[in-house]
Amino acid sequence: MLKTISAVLDNGLFQKFIIGVILGNAVLLGLMTQQDLSPGTLQVFELLDNACLVVFCVEIAMKLAVQRLRFFRDGWNVFDFAVVAIALAPASGPLAVLRAMRVFRLMRLVTAVPSMRQVITGMFSALPGVGSVAGVLFVMFYVAGIMGTSFFHEVEPRRFGDLGSTFFTLFQFLTLEGWPDVARPVIEKLPHAWPFFVIFIVLTTFTTLNLLFGIIVNAMEEAKEEGAREKLAEQGVEMTHESTEMRLAVIERELQAARATIAALTAQAEAAVDVKG
Amino acid sequence: MLKTISAVLDNGLFQKFIIGVILGNAVLLGLMTQQDLSPGTLQVFELLDNACLVVFCVEIAMKLAVQRLRFFRDGWNVFDFAVVAIALAPASGPLAVLRAMRVFRLMRLVTAVPSMRQVITGMFSALPGVGSVAGVLFVMFYVAGIMGTSFFHEVEPRRFGDLGSTFFTLFQFLTLEGWPDVARPVIEKLPHAWPFFVIFIVLTTFTTLNLLFGIIVNAMEEAKEEGAREKLAEQGVEMTHESTEMRLAVIERELQAARATIAALTAQAEAAVDVKG
Amino acid sequence: MLKTISAVLDNGLFQKFIIGVILGNAVLLGLMTQQDLSPGTLQVFELLDNACLVVFCVEIAMKLAVQRLRFFRDGWNVFDFAVVAIALAPASGPLAVLRAMRVFRLMRLVTAVPSMRQVITGMFSALPGVGSVAGVLFVMFYVAGIMGTSFFHEVEPRRFGDLGSTFFTLFQFLTLEGWPDVARPVIEKLPHAWPFFVIFIVLTTFTTLNLLFGIIVNAMEEAKEEGAREKLAEQGVEMTHESTEMRLAVIERELQAARATIAALTAQAEAAVDVKG
Amino acid sequence: MLKTISAVLDNGLFQKFIIGVILGNAVLLGLMTQQDLSPGTLQVFELLDNACLVVFCVEIAMKLAVQRLRFFRDGWNVFDFAVVAIALAPASGPLAVLRAMRVFRLMRLVTAVPSMRQVITGMFSALPGVGSVAGVLFVMFYVAGIMGTSFFHEVEPRRFGDLGSTFFTLFQFLTLEGWPDVARPVIEKLPHAWPFFVIFIVLTTFTTLNLLFGIIVNAMEEAKEEGAREKLAEQGVEMTHESTEMRLAVIERELQAARATIAALTAQAEAAVDVKG
Repeated sequence: MLKTISAVLDNGLFQKFIIGVILGNAVLLGLMTQQDLSPGTLQVFELLDNACLVVFCVEIAMKLAVQRLRFFRDGWNVFDFAVVAIALAPASGPLAVLRAMRVFRLMRLVTAVPSMRQVITGMFSALPGVGSVAGVLFVMFYVAGIMGTSFFHEVEPRRFGDLGSTFFTLFQFLTLEGWPDVARPVIEKLPHAWPFFVIFIVLTTFTTLNLLFGIIVNAMEEAKEEGAREKLAEQGVEMTHESTEMRLAVIERELQAARATIAALTAQAEAAVDVKG
Repeated sequence: MLKTISAVLDNGLFQKFIIGVILGNAVLLGLMTQQDLSPGTLQVFELLDNACLVVFCVEIAMKLAVQRLRFFRDGWNVFDFAVVAIALAPASGPLAVLRAMRVFRLMRLVTAVPSMRQVITGMFSALPGVGSVAGVLFVMFYVAGIMGTSFFHEVEPRRFGDLGSTFFTLFQFLTLEGWPDVARPVIEKLPHAWPFFVIFIVLTTFTTLNLLFGIIVNAMEEAKEEGAREKLAEQGVEMTHESTEMRLAVIERELQAARATIAALTAQAEAAVDVKG
Repeated sequence: MLKTISAVLDNGLFQKFIIGVILGNAVLLGLMTQQDLSPGTLQVFELLDNACLVVFCVEIAMKLAVQRLRFFRDGWNVFDFAVVAIALAPASGPLAVLRAMRVFRLMRLVTAVPSMRQVITGMFSALPGVGSVAGVLFVMFYVAGIMGTSFFHEVEPRRFGDLGSTFFTLFQFLTLEGWPDVARPVIEKLPHAWPFFVIFIVLTTFTTLNLLFGIIVNAMEEAKEEGAREKLAEQGVEMTHESTEMRLAVIERELQAARATIAALTAQAEAAVDVKG
Repeated sequence: MLKTISAVLDNGLFQKFIIGVILGNAVLLGLMTQQDLSPGTLQVFELLDNACLVVFCVEIAMKLAVQRLRFFRDGWNVFDFAVVAIALAPASGPLAVLRAMRVFRLMRLVTAVPSMRQVITGMFSALPGVGSVAGVLFVMFYVAGIMGTSFFHEVEPRRFGDLGSTFFTLFQFLTLEGWPDVARPVIEKLPHAWPFFVIFIVLTTFTTLNLLFGIIVNAMEEAKEEGAREKLAEQGVEMTHESTEMRLAVIERELQAARATIAALTAQAEAAVDVKG
């Protein structure tokens, strides 16, 4: 029994069917956003949506049956489980708000398509490498948040009234969006406030760029090296996990060793000739 | 006959003539945007524009005569054919709107100049490598579109009234342009809506940067390797399509093999000396 | 005595304690931004804040006792000393404004966490490499500042009234934020002013990107090479401070030398065979 | 006589003096932007400004005397000559507007500091490599300019009234600044206009990024290779102008040749042993 289920799960057709159901569900949820649906149409849509949900529940139940507790060790499975579980929340009561999040179910498309899953994995695997940059950015943000609140909460209570508002305003600054509209009225009242804005913008824009750049470049290099490793593996060559920099250093060392051996060989040959001579 | 046409088409002068006609046509269409043209001038311009069109038609007819159905296998030819065909649409009737698109004809300049054609080819050839990133971005966009419409269609019908409006608003968010002007009134009415905006902006800005970056870097590397390959081909050396990473791995392997051979040789030489000794 | 202090300072637990105090102080200063605190709560918070300050003072005094004047040779120590000294400024009198800067104390987190310190060091070490680009940007800015003030101080005194206002406006242009709102009214009065805005935006945006890019890429390469060097050092291989470009040139040279030696060896062997033959 | 002048020009102190005069002139022009200068102060400033100008004239006259017509072959000299010549324009009459451009004189700082000159040279030398991308961008811009003018000149005459206005508006779109404020009113009147804005923004933003990126990366690589070449030249090693890609291909080829030679040597040695055996 379990073997049959396992075979079905690994079947390419079954996987395509699931992707199809996700896409169908996406179209369905899109259509359901229309405001002027007749009650009948809406009922049909709800029915179809529930059918999709049943398919997802069955799929997850099958996976659970086969993999049991191992199922929850894979983050993607946990994600799938969570987005399907959300949809099972009752339509009324305190959990009703969760129903609005049933649209997260469409993100299962990312889980179902391996190449899209790799994109997300790549980004996550690049995160630790930039953790310190994120830390620096967070410290800047927090310090600026406290300074902004204590300096400007009186002149601009709507934007700097409390720590939460200030953080939202500073996030707006981070995107550079409309910052002069926020800064100019403050500066008109507190003329010495301009360095706060200029320094915050210069430092955080730079650090954010650094952060984004670091993640993207790390993820891209990881992907490229992974690709090269796979290609070489096909040819039966194993590639170490070393970087270009290290590989060059190793080649240099190898080459020096080779030259030394050759030099020794030459010396030997000359000695041999000498002996014979 | 066909040979003569083929010779004319390959002639550098003819190609320069076509580029000249495109440029002339560009100036002409620029002048025709003026609102205060006298009917006489306008008629002259229309006449000259039609003359340009005739030249393009003749050129395409010549190409069709030589290449026949092969003509349509090249995407650039299809593009040229399409933009010239648009211009032949009747000035009135349901296809009249197409006439406004006769300006697309100027894009033939890109087709006619090989180095510009290469830029576009490079971008297109880089697209498959970022298809998954684009897919992830699309899923984010669609999910956010449905969520935005169902959450905010009541408080901000102009911007989140239906799926189409929400997508346009989210595209605006993607460019970061004026997002606080959209978000602040919504947040004032629904204070718990702020994570929607912050998370959407952080995730999509990052994914978009990733996407743009991926395309640009891929296209640039492709171009650089292509250049190196051409240069080496001139010197009679063939370069494989492998990446820097793979090439380094191959060099490393080659070097190890060389060292092994040398070591064997040394051992042999020593043995020979021993035998003689 | 000094040895004991030195041992305490180097102790991992002590360092974690200091990081803990900084984090606690951060939460405290965050809570103190609330406007509606009862006097009692505020007093408790002030007390706790002073306790944190005492901890920092003791830590710095300990470091000073051990390292004496060497203490001030390390920029990070100077930074720590300065931010703690600021907090000791009297709550009233001309230095009262400095008290508002006690939040800078939280930046000690960056000093205390080695990986975050490295991020800042990396950025600073990348600065000299882009000094010339920054210089070019500064010249552009200064020239545009004088031009903008003398051209537009009459038509837009609020934004171009004096050199200071113009610099702030140009900084706003640098972030591209709201530049059309500034430029359009000026252009309506002085129609020939548009090249000033277009050229300034194109040149400075480009130079700024160049600058940011240069710093980020330099810092990243530095970090990557540093990582490779450390890894190789663990394996007992020393890596020179040379760039990839130089390393490749060295490998090329080594290889040519090796080939020459081998060729000589072959010639010798052939000669030996000939002699025997 | 010429030799003495030439010696003075090459003297480091003289060059520092010129840089000093430029910096002094910069401060002076900055001070002269103040609106409330007394006539006396203004006169003193004018006098000092003229003194600076005299120094520049003498410097250029000296260079002209030494280099004669060769002087004009160097673009930097032409630039210096032009910015000084502008300052000599009469204060009244049709050329009076040129006087406002005397501030360009400060750009001589870039000419006078070699490392800043290199930044500009690097950018210019990277331009040909991105000429095709710039061409594609220009074609997009021109086509969109004509389309925008013919589609929207009626509904939004202020922004799309003629080709010039449309180009300025499209440049604004290129910086993404305030594009929704321009696009929304147009779309409200012409609901089918949205693809024009979305497609234009996506394509040009991408192409512009491609362009900026290409210039910056090219210039940085050029600078890095230049640096490596100089370092190697100090060690007496010549580095070819080849790229990393080509250098790797050459190393690969060299290595294969080396292995072939070694293999031949081994075969020979074995044959020799066999003969003896």
